[in-house]
Formats: sequence, structure tokens, C-alpha cells
Amino acid sequence: MTQNIVDNLYKKMDEKQTPLMIGLDPNLSLFPEHVLRDATNRFGSTRIAAAQAIKNFNIAVIDATADLVPIYKPQSAYYEQYGSDGIRTLEDTIAYAKSRGALVCLDAKRNDIDSTSAAYAEAHLGKVLLPDGNFIPSADNADFITVNGYLGSDGVKPFIEVANREGKGIFVLVKTSNKSSGELQDLLVGNKTVYMTMAQLINSWGQNIGENNYSNVGAVVGATYPEEAKKLREMLPNTLFLMPGYGAQGAKAEILVNDFDQQGRGAVVNSSRGITYAFSDKKFKEKYPDLAKPEKFAEAARQATIDSIKDINLALRNAGKLPSSWNRF
Amino acid sequence: MTQNIVDNLYKKMDEKQTPLMIGLDPNLSLFPEHVLRDATNRFGSTRIAAAQAIKNFNIAVIDATADLVPIYKPQSAYYEQYGSDGIRTLEDTIAYAKSRGALVCLDAKRNDIDSTSAAYAEAHLGKVLLPDGNFIPSADNADFITVNGYLGSDGVKPFIEVANREGKGIFVLVKTSNKSSGELQDLLVGNKTVYMTMAQLINSWGQNIGENNYSNVGAVVGATYPEEAKKLREMLPNTLFLMPGYGAQGAKAEILVNDFDQQGRGAVVNSSRGITYAFSDKKFKEKYPDLAKPEKFAEAARQATIDSIKDINLALRNAGKLPSSWNRF
Repeated sequence: MTQNIVDNLYKKMDEKQTPLMIGLDPNLSLFPEHVLRDATNRFGSTRIAAAQAIKNFNIAVIDATADLVPIYKPQSAYYEQYGSDGIRTLEDTIAYAKSRGALVCLDAKRNDIDSTSAAYAEAHLGKVLLPDGNFIPSADNADFITVNGYLGSDGVKPFIEVANREGKGIFVLVKTSNKSSGELQDLLVGNKTVYMTMAQLINSWGQNIGENNYSNVGAVVGATYPEEAKKLREMLPNTLFLMPGYGAQGAKAEILVNDFDQQGRGAVVNSSRGITYAFSDKKFKEKYPDLAKPEKFAEAARQATIDSIKDINLALRNAGKLPSSWNRF
Repeated sequence: MTQNIVDNLYKKMDEKQTPLMIGLDPNLSLFPEHVLRDATNRFGSTRIAAAQAIKNFNIAVIDATADLVPIYKPQSAYYEQYGSDGIRTLEDTIAYAKSRGALVCLDAKRNDIDSTSAAYAEAHLGKVLLPDGNFIPSADNADFITVNGYLGSDGVKPFIEVANREGKGIFVLVKTSNKSSGELQDLLVGNKTVYMTMAQLINSWGQNIGENNYSNVGAVVGATYPEEAKKLREMLPNTLFLMPGYGAQGAKAEILVNDFDQQGRGAVVNSSRGITYAFSDKKFKEKYPDLAKPEKFAEAARQATIDSIKDINLALRNAGKLPSSWNRF
């Protein structure tokens, strides 16, 4: 086994003094007009124009926030929309975020049977075979990937094997942030739910535990379900939580603190739309009329990032969980 | 609602007289030497060489089998291995199979919360927005996609909405073919398993039912679990089953018949490695020494396809389920 990626993530979290992760979910219908117009002027009515608009948007957001956050999370669906051109932009976005010192979690929720899961794991975290027999790093080469565990151990273990070999990590879906997540995840199996069964599997899979007491097999736990999060935090003392749902999906910072341990470790909090499209957000507009303009979208993203960090750190402080060295915000 | 894609699939099944689907899972370590060498000679030690080798291999397999089968199933993982170059080859493969009259199911097992599932659905079955405000068809534009339903209704419904609008279909994972599928899927919730709960959800989602009595919301049911398949066939009279596991994964034709209704409808049977890499298969070598050579891989795939069709149709005939008009094999 190589380094534990969570140790690396914690180093970056301490440096930036925040557990905030910025989600990069490029949706053209929410983009600033001038970014769209520039791409159309240059590349016409094409997928390449879409890919270029996304690339320019992402680079501007990363430039405006890279000194503030330890990690970004591009959502694969939005890049897959533009086929191979979109995937090229995903690769460029990941490479750019890494060049600015950040880690990257590819949110792709991949899953399949053993041999195919191995192919996915190599595709996004590992190394792939060329026709001449050489192996090269995967094209996107993310640090983490999200995984759906519905197929059980043999569909997840190939991801863990590649993650261990490459010094990378995964987050397995446990309790997701959406409204209908309970239809399957909350069903009672004996005296515990399906998601708790999944949590126990994750606990058994997470044997590569770093200096910080966390393994490289994390869990996706929706910030929108704080009671469930509290139980899971107790059940899974060595499992890092990736928490979607803060901000645009409605979860407030006060309820996020359940997912952190007493030392303020144990969770990364994702915000996507609340950061990247802050310029068009109603509340943001009232607070920062000067920044709430399409042409200032990157500055607005920076301000929304600072506000989110302050909001989360204040909640952690109030819960007595803010790491003592975090005094920047 | 537009046409029901399953009606279209059945038309093609009747034309070819088989429910066989060929899986295109390109794994370079199993490729014929000359295909690899040609790609290296032309494109060197690059991802483009890998993508080119896959494209040439797939086109040769499709050319050798397009008159025999109604549908192909490329597995996304193997194309994602080569990043944007691999995805371009996936797009080319799908377009080529369609140009030869076949339908295509993209095996991608996508899943996410509502808004992101909508992005995935448009990315692979629907239409996507360009910077100038126009919508264009998705780059791969598959006929079907596989979906993982662990997130519940609001993660699956966007796929169904796009499928209904575009005359396309989905297959939702129920009972997968791998060994550990039972770890979650077989857990008992009251008096039924998790996978049966998923099956009931699928039944409720499948309201677009075609002339053939089947809806465009199908289910993935592993051929390796025949008893479970039998129960599911009874529970889901309007649900088409996509059955992985025949051939290389070990399921025999005799046990597949449980997944078909009395009219020989209700299932498509996938074979991937057993067809595409027949040239290097031990049993195939003994039976067809002249075809079991790397340079004859496409002819071998054709012969393996014919043998598989005969094998499945014989089992259907023995079970009294072969459609009366199917007398070609």
C-alpha cells in the first residue's frame, strides 16, 4: 500500500482551514450569457462550443477559488452530455484543478460486476493498457471516485484494490441526499436498514487506514438526513463522509456537524450550484448586488465560497468541533 | 409518447429469429495480435492507438454478425478506459451498429439524484443544449441504457421521461449476475427481498406498454440465478429482462428459458466474451480448429453467434416457448 489519500486530503484541509468541496456541475442553461456567446462566436452551433464554454467557465471558477478549497468534485453526467468533447473538457478540468494544488473527486457513481468494475477503476483512478503492451495513467486520473455498491463486494473491491495500489480513494453511496432515497435505502432488514447494511460493508472494506484514523474507503451520506448521519458517524469511526446536499439542496451548516467527529474530522461538505451559480442566486443578489452579475460569476463564486466556509466553520465552532489551528475564517 | 422501443426490438428479434444480444466489451489484453500491431504501427504508444484498435475490432465483429442479431450492448467501462478517445470510439461503434440496422443498449449502469439523472438521461438517450440555445441529439444516442436504482424513484424517473419522449428504453438492475449480488439484493425486507422490492418499483414505473405487452422499463436479471428469474418472470408480466451471464459467466441455455414467457417473449440474452473472443476459447478451438486463430476472430465471432442462437432456440423449443415463426436455426 502507498500513501493514504485521506491523510493528503486532511493536509490540504488544514492548509485551507475548511472541509468544503466545490462541485463542478456545468449546466449551460445556468451559464453567464457572455461565456455562451464567446463559445458560439468561436465554434458555432457545435458540441465543441459547449465543451469550450464549460472549460472556460470551470477554469475561471477554479482560478477564483483554488486558494480557498482543498478539493473539487466534477459531476460526470454534465460532461458526458457532450460526448467525447465533453469528456475532453472533464479531463482538462481535472488536470487544471490538480495543477492548482487541489485534489479531485470524480462523481460518477460507477458500479458493475467484478471484471467490469476493475475496468472502471483503472479507467478513472488507475492505469490502462495500450496496444503495444505499455500501461499509462488513466486519462482523467482522479484522486477519488464515487461508487454505487448495489452489486455487493465483488463490484466494489476492484475499486479498492486500484485505490490502494495508486494511493487513491473511493466514496460508496450509503444514504443519498435525494427525496426518494428511502424507497430502498431505508427498508428494514431485521433490525437495521439497507443503508446501515451498506455502511457495515463499507466498514469491513476500509482496511487501509491513514495516520488520521480514516480509511480510503469513504461513504456518501446526504447532508439532508442529519439523524441518519449521526447514527452512521457512530457506526463508522474510520469512514470519511462525502456530504452532498449543503446549500442549494437545502441542508444548513448546523445540521452538518453531526457528520464530523470531535476533532472536526470525518467529513467533506460539497456545494455545487450554491457556489458556481451564486451570481444568479436571489439571496446572493440581495447581499452582494455588485457581484450578482453574469460577468462577475467567478468573483461571485469566490465570495460564495468564503461565505460557505465561514458558515460551516462557525457551525463547527459552535459544536465544539472546529480544529484548534483553524482560525483563518 | 412515441413508439415503444420494445415493439421495435421484437420486430428485429423476429426478423433475426433470436433474442441474442452481443456485448462489445473491448479488452486489449484479449485482442488479436495483428489488430494491436496495426494500431501501434499507425498511432504509436498512445490512447488514440487503443481507441483505433477497438474501433477496428468492433467494426469487424459487427460486420460479421449484423445479419444475425437484433441488438448490441457496448459496456461503457471499456471505452472510458481511454478517456475522450475511447468515448469517441464508443460513439463510432454505436453509430456503426445502428447503420447496420441493429439497436444498441449502452451498458453504463448510471444513477444519481433527480437533476443529475436527467443530465445522464439526456446525455445518452436524449437531447443536449448548445451555447447558442439549440438542442442536438446526444453524441452516442443509444436506444437503451442500463440504470442502477439504489437512489429510488426520483433517480430513475428522469431516465423514463427521456425514454418516453424519445421512443427509447431502460433496464434497471434487479438481480445482477455476479457472485456477491446477494449481499444487498437478497436481504429480506419483511417477507420479500430487496431485489423483489426493486422489481415492484420497476413494475410501477413501466407504464408505457407496447403492442407486445412489454414496457420500455426493463430489468437486468442475471442468467446465473434461474430460480430468482422464475419468480421475477411471474411478478413482472410486462417487464423485458436483459440477462447477462450466459456463456462466459457460466449460465446454460436450459436455465435461461425461465426468463421467457410462454410465447418466447420477455428476455434478451447477452453474450460478450463468449462471442467476441471465441477465437481464443478452448472449447471453440477444439470444435473449430480452422477458425480458432487470431486473424479469423471475426469469422469465429460469427460462428459463435450462430452456435449461441441455435443453443438458445433449442432450449426455447424444448421448453415449448420458441415462437412458431422462428425456423431459421
